[in-house]
This record gives sequence, C-alpha cells and structure tokens, in this order.
Amino acid sequence: MADVITTRAKNYSQWYLDIVKEAGLADNSDVRGCMVIKPTGYAIWEKMQRALDGLFKSTGHVNAYFPLFIPMSFLAKEEQMAEGFAKECAVVTHYRLKAEHGKPLHVDPTAELEEPLIIRPTSETIIWNTYKKWVQSYRDLPLLINQWCNVVRWEMRTRLFLRTAEFLWQEGHTAHASAQEAEAETLQMVRVYQKFAEEWMAMPVLVGPKTDGQKFPGAVYTLCIEAMMQDGKALQAGTSHFLGQNFAKAFDVTFKDKENKEEFAWATSWGVSTRLIGGLIMTHSDDNGLVVPPRLAATHVVIVPLGKNDAERAPSIAAAEKLAAELRALPRDDFFGYEPISVKIDAMFDKQPGFRYAEYEVRGVPVRVEIGPKDIEKLACAVARRDVPGKEGKQFGVPLVSAADHVAKLLRDIQSALYNRAKAFRDSRIVTANTLDEFKALFPEREEAKEAGAEPLKFVYAHWDGTKETEDRVQKEYAATIRCLPFDGPQEAGTCIFTGKPSTRRVIFARAY
Amino acid sequence: MADVITTRAKNYSQWYLDIVKEAGLADNSDVRGCMVIKPTGYAIWEKMQRALDGLFKSTGHVNAYFPLFIPMSFLAKEEQMAEGFAKECAVVTHYRLKAEHGKPLHVDPTAELEEPLIIRPTSETIIWNTYKKWVQSYRDLPLLINQWCNVVRWEMRTRLFLRTAEFLWQEGHTAHASAQEAEAETLQMVRVYQKFAEEWMAMPVLVGPKTDGQKFPGAVYTLCIEAMMQDGKALQAGTSHFLGQNFAKAFDVTFKDKENKEEFAWATSWGVSTRLIGGLIMTHSDDNGLVVPPRLAATHVVIVPLGKNDAERAPSIAAAEKLAAELRALPRDDFFGYEPISVKIDAMFDKQPGFRYAEYEVRGVPVRVEIGPKDIEKLACAVARRDVPGKEGKQFGVPLVSAADHVAKLLRDIQSALYNRAKAFRDSRIVTANTLDEFKALFPEREEAKEAGAEPLKFVYAHWDGTKETEDRVQKEYAATIRCLPFDGPQEAGTCIFTGKPSTRRVIFARAY
Repeated sequence: MADVITTRAKNYSQWYLDIVKEAGLADNSDVRGCMVIKPTGYAIWEKMQRALDGLFKSTGHVNAYFPLFIPMSFLAKEEQMAEGFAKECAVVTHYRLKAEHGKPLHVDPTAELEEPLIIRPTSETIIWNTYKKWVQSYRDLPLLINQWCNVVRWEMRTRLFLRTAEFLWQEGHTAHASAQEAEAETLQMVRVYQKFAEEWMAMPVLVGPKTDGQKFPGAVYTLCIEAMMQDGKALQAGTSHFLGQNFAKAFDVTFKDKENKEEFAWATSWGVSTRLIGGLIMTHSDDNGLVVPPRLAATHVVIVPLGKNDAERAPSIAAAEKLAAELRALPRDDFFGYEPISVKIDAMFDKQPGFRYAEYEVRGVPVRVEIGPKDIEKLACAVARRDVPGKEGKQFGVPLVSAADHVAKLLRDIQSALYNRAKAFRDSRIVTANTLDEFKALFPEREEAKEAGAEPLKFVYAHWDGTKETEDRVQKEYAATIRCLPFDGPQEAGTCIFTGKPSTRRVIFARAY
Repeated sequence: MADVITTRAKNYSQWYLDIVKEAGLADNSDVRGCMVIKPTGYAIWEKMQRALDGLFKSTGHVNAYFPLFIPMSFLAKEEQMAEGFAKECAVVTHYRLKAEHGKPLHVDPTAELEEPLIIRPTSETIIWNTYKKWVQSYRDLPLLINQWCNVVRWEMRTRLFLRTAEFLWQEGHTAHASAQEAEAETLQMVRVYQKFAEEWMAMPVLVGPKTDGQKFPGAVYTLCIEAMMQDGKALQAGTSHFLGQNFAKAFDVTFKDKENKEEFAWATSWGVSTRLIGGLIMTHSDDNGLVVPPRLAATHVVIVPLGKNDAERAPSIAAAEKLAAELRALPRDDFFGYEPISVKIDAMFDKQPGFRYAEYEVRGVPVRVEIGPKDIEKLACAVARRDVPGKEGKQFGVPLVSAADHVAKLLRDIQSALYNRAKAFRDSRIVTANTLDEFKALFPEREEAKEAGAEPLKFVYAHWDGTKETEDRVQKEYAATIRCLPFDGPQEAGTCIFTGKPSTRRVIFARAY
C-alpha cells in the first residue's frame, strides 16, 4: 500500500492526491469540478460538523435552512457581492425537461423561468431578504443563525477538498442592534474557529484581519484563521466577516431601537468548509499515508488479532473482542464529543500482518493494537501509535488487563503531540524579512519551489506600506499574498521593504492554496 | 397566542398552516416553492437526523456525499426515471453572470454549458455512475451508503414541509451481490423507518408494498410506511425500493462473483425527508399549538419562575436554576440520543403567567414547571404536561427535592402516551368496506369532507382486482388511492368491490397528502 504514495520530498502535490485516493477520502466525479466525498472522507466531515456545531450552540447560535436558489436580482442588490460572485455562478434557467418517445431527453424550451435563479455561492442575499420579515424591533435582535449546506462556485481550476465547484460548508449569519455587538460577534466566531482548528484539528493558526484587498465582497472587514501546510504554503481555513449595514441597506432591514428610532441592523457572516479536510491532510499526514487527530478520527483504534491457524487465532480474537468491548464501554466525555471510542477488529487473516498494518496506516487510524499467540502467553498486547510510525511508536508488552486505559490515554497524548509537532514546524518557519533581497530569497521561482527535495516555504513577516498597489505588485512578482495581520504579531512601525514608504506594522506574506 | 390558531374542526388545512407559523417552524420564501426552515423547525429536523443516522449506522451503513448536479444524459439512461422526473427538473444551463457597469446583472450568453445539468431530484443515476468505478469484485460488495442532502422537484402546488420544490432528505443507495441480499436490505430499511416513526415520532404506521402503479420510477417494487393524520388522510412517510438490476444495467455496474462470472449488481434505495415534520405536526398537535414527542423536542422542559416583585422572584429563580442544573446533569442515555435534557428558564416577568404558559404550549415544549412564592413555601412546584392541556395535565405540589426525577420520568411517559393516543385514533379509523356503497359512503365529496365540523376520514380495507385500470378509476372517482398492502393486514381472498373480479387480498384505500 504505502509504496503507492509519492513522498512529500519527491512531489508534494502528487503526495496530497495520493493520500486522498489511497485513504479513500474523495474522488473526482464525472460532473466538471464536483467531487464525490467517499465514506472515509465524509466521516471526518461529520466529526468536524459535530464539534463545530457544539461550539456554535454553546455560543448561543441555532441552525436553520434557507433556499438553494437565489433570484438573480437579489445578488444584484449588493454591488460588491454581485461583482465578486457573478463570474462563478451556476444559473438555473428552466424548470422542466421533455421526454418524448423517439426523441432524446431535452430541455423544454417552453419552461423558461421569468427570472434566472443562481445556485447559492453564499447566502447573505437570500438570508437578509428573509430577515427583513423577521426584524421589526430591537427585541427581535440579535438573530444568531447558522446554516449547514452545499454551495456552488464555478471554479475553473479545481483540486479535491481545496477548491471544488460544489462544496459543503456552514455559514453563520447574524443580525445585531449595534455595530459594537456585531463586531464582538465577528471576533468571537474567529476565536471559535481558532479553538476548533487548534483543539480538534490539532492545527495551529494565525488569527487576524485580512487586508482590504483580500476581504470578502460586501464586508467592512474580514478576520481569518491561516494555517501552514507542510510545504510551507498558507491555507485560509476560516473567515469571519463584519458586514456593517451593507446588507441591511441592500435589503431594507430596519428595526425600531429602544428610543423608537428606525435603524438599519448590523451584520456578520462566518464560514468554514470541507476545505478543512484538505488542511487536516496537509498538516499531519506523512509518507505512509493519512494521519488524523484522534478527536476527528472515525475509527480510533484498530485491533489486529494474529495467528497462523484457527487454534492460534481463537484466543487472539477473544482477547481482541474483550478489549474492544472495554474500550467502547469507557465513560463518554467531551473529548470525543460524548461518542464512544470507535474500535474496529481486523479480520483479514488471509493477508500478511505487514499488509494489514500498512492498510490502517494509510487510512490514518490513530492507534493499532496487535494481539498474537506470544502476547496471549504473556497476557499482553503491542500498541502502535500512528503519529510515530515504525518501531519507535510501538510499545510491546502492554498488559491486557490495563490495555483499555492505556489506549484511552494514548489517544489523548496523540492529540496533543500532533498539535505540538505542527506548531513547532510552523513556528520554525515564520521568519522576518527586513530587506527586499531577504524577501526575494524566501520566495524562489514557483517551479524551483516545487522541485523534488525543495525546502518548505516560509511565512514571512515584512513591513508593507498599506496600499493595494503594493500588495498587487508583490503578488504579481513573487506569487505571495498578505495572509493576515496577526493579532499576536509584532506591532512596531517601520519602512515598507517594497516602496520605502512608512509601515505601521509587519504583516504575514506567504504563498497560498 | 392560542386564539390565533384556527381549530381543527373549523378548518383543518388552516389549522396546520397556523401551527407552522405560530410555532415558528417554517416560512414560505420569495423563491417560488422553496421554504425557509426556521430555527424551531430545523431543531426538530436535527433531532430526526441524529436518531435516523444512529439507526442507519447501527445497521452497518456509512454516509458519503455525491454531486448536486446530474448531467441530463445520466437521467436519460434509465427510462422510467427519465419519464418520472423529467417534468420536475430544475435545469442549469449557464455557469456565469455578467456584471457590466451601466447594465443590469444578466446571464452571460457566452457561458452556456455543453450539456445541461439538472439539480438532483434523487441521486440513483449519479451514484450508480460512481459505483461503476467502485465495484469490480464480489469483495467490493455490499456498498451500504447513505447521503444527507437537499433535492429539488419542481412541484406546482406546494405546502410547507409536505410538498416543496426544494426539500431536505436522506437517500440510502446500496449495492449487493445477490437479489436475495438486496431484498433483505429493502425490508430491513422499511423496518428501520417503522422503528423511527413509532419509537421516536410516536407515529404508528402501516408497513407494506405499494401497488405497481404507485411504485418509484425505476423500482421493481416499493415498500412504504403510511401514517394517518388527524383528518384521517394518509401520509406516505418513508419508502424503501428494491431496484433489481435496473440501475446496474443502465450504468454498467458489474462484478466478478466467487466463480469469476461477470454479474450485474443488485440495488436498493430508501429515503425520508423533511416531510416527516409535517407528519409529526399533524399526528400530535392540538388546537392550542404544536405537540412534539419528547425524544424529538429541541427543548424538553421550560421552567417558569413566578413572582410579583424582585423579592418574590429571587427564590423562584434560584429554585428554577437549581432544578435546571439537576435536570441537565441527569445521566445521558439512548432515550435522548445521549444528549442532556434540554431546559429553558423563562424570564418574561413583564408578561402575565397565562401568556407565558400559552407561549410554550404553542411551541410544543413537552413539560412546563411553574415555581411561584406559594410553591417555594411548600418546597414544591407545579408540573404541566403538554400532551394533556389544562388542569387535567397539571400536577401541583411536586416536591422540589425529587422534581428532576419526576420530570425525567414524565418525559418518558409522555412519549408513550402520545404513541398510544395516536395508535388508538388510527386503529379506530381503519374500517372494512365490503360493497361499493359502503366504500362510497366512506369517501364523501372533497369539499364536503373539508367542511367545518366534518368527521375525519378513514383508512378502508377493500378487495381490489389487482389492476392499474381499477386503481386509476377509483382515484378518479373517489380521490382515494391504494396506500399499501400492509404486511399485517388480512390476507384472505375475495371479490373486487369495483369490478367483481377475483381479489387475492384486501388493500388499504385512503385519501392522501
């Protein structure tokens, strides 16, 4: 199995696609740009949904569902949004096909819609058109609503999970009585995303605003979480937008405040998508296959009973079943979202043990337990952790009597070990460039950066004059963009390394997905 | 509140719409035929999803996700399906809008798709086109996959939850190596739906096959669950289809069996949708508002502290908070899907108690606890159950010290009481017609049946000659259809009451949603 995965050093892009394929996460479909999320990949998304949904609800949000279709005129009402999304819209123009005998199935020309409908690329317009009916008084505010759904953006270059024409996501849309409250919500939700990324995905992120040039169409400003992949490129993993009164004005959403004065409502929106699965893969996986943090793993533990014949196998299987039952019966808590520990017993006795181990390594099962005749003699088992492949990560002679507790603790250890490793990797690759030459050296030609054995790229703190012109020039010349202005980053003023003009602070430049 | 709900006796259809509106379950949107599922309605759907998903997984199924778009040619490949769905398809023909300055936003005529895409009305075609790549050998079977998603069927007459252009559902699609195994799956899944309907929704159902005339386009046969609403009309609440090899042949899905012989795979599909929310409403609700069985209620308990002033209110609030904490801390089990009991403390002290009680009655909260100064004196509270409105359902003097256990037990009692009540209602309205005159008398003119004070309709067991002609004639003349041939129904042969021809068994006729 493992030899079908290209190494990261040889070809990072191919490595990613190999993991997606060999771990059974997703497939390209026969519909241009759309993916099929396979059961193993979808199981990760389900775990992500449960965890995020819990975080949203514990911050006072509720879920709802709004139509897939948006009348074209709705999109037109918010100019930035129309400009931002017009080029990527799938458009429904007819509502009927015709199946006549002897003729191929075709679109019925008599069933044309009076107004074309677009498939939602994001739902601000249809939702604010609805909020108009729900909001009359300050007593109706805040509205703290989230939606789990599919959206479509007709992308020309697609890549499984990272960029597809259709993807799954959640989009929060809140309405508030004051700018202050809406801004607090915008910040709260980017912090929720940070918590999820770090505590569930074990993926450290930088948090802060985007530049004006990179903000969401229709937003006053956008906050984001940015993660570093193992090739040193950035992945925008979640965004939270303060929308001001833009959508309230476009859709005439006003309310009477406590002084009975008519005001426009204040808005936020925030979202993360199945793109996170791409981020998860590229943060933790290795040349042997997928690595999944235990809190998001569909199967936490695989137990592999061993034996040459039925007589040898029977006690191994019995011990495996006993351990599985013990693991499943452990008290539930929030660490695994109040779900039981998920255990699979492998039964591929017709395959070599090495093949069986590799199979679960490729699929990223966090812990593997092996029980063979020699282990049974010693009333013990061997426990291997996926995050440390090979002998180094394998402990022999774990007593069966305490194996369930041992494995439960190990799962928690793996979760924090993965975070610490990813953070150490990232922190060692955040550097400062004080001159243009230093900057240039950090962003080699694209082809050069992709060569076999190329060093991972870095996140680069540099002074920037704050203008879109300079930002665009840097993107054109070095293929690097400003990822964010991290809240936790250095705040001292300086001189823009590109133009020599004053800079209020250093910002993070990186190549990005 | 309650007086804004039309009584069932006065106008049953309006009663239904009033409940949907006043309980805050859903709204019509400005997009033709599409609904907005509001937070209270969506919370019921979330509970349904959790419970169903657990039942699917415990029967070995996994979730996945397939594209929203289906190329028109895929639909054309299975003739019955093309004929069945052609007239209801939303069609995407373009992939770009154009926003030019000075011109209104419009469809870009240069961005026409080579092949139109339809929005999935159901996913057999796209899924079997994918299974072609996944299935080579009997070792790849069975595939036991489910999808949670939105689908679109361009219906002309829509009604919130019961019939909308876009709705949410799950669709299971399984592939098997033998007809026998696929048929066992078809039966298993309709039994899963029965279990969910009866044990979670507290809605009794008849289970059995549809007639050939009523089966799903592309199916060999369809099994269904049919429920009776309070007006005596039937609601098809879930279907499970044995698809034979129809889709395997249309999409060329073959596998090598154990003898290395090439065979077409055998298929099933099965689904339930947000229509179930309509069924839930019409099974249990009353003239005071929504009634939700506790296992599907988003809020299980509302505690209403009472008092004329702050001094009186403070101890009521303290007792309410203590009880809420006790309820939330009760051990979790499968009855509530391992979620804690959900408790809300009402704080509308500026409203009259009667108003506050009515508010939660309209919204269907199963249990209301009232704690006022007189209760505090007695270290007690009053507990009202939603399924028995008024004094009859209210128990005074429940000791606070044991109130949490009392309420937890009451929630379970309400669940079974609702089922028993619905079953008694239905069973008393299943009758037998042995002559055409008896049959005619049971299906009055449509307008007559809808008059204020009209008796609920009945499910009618009658002999039928087994032909589509007779079935169509009955539908035309009496607006009644054959709902199913219940597995548990009487099996003796007889004479068709419509044609005098032989009948192998009685079938269930009813008017339906």
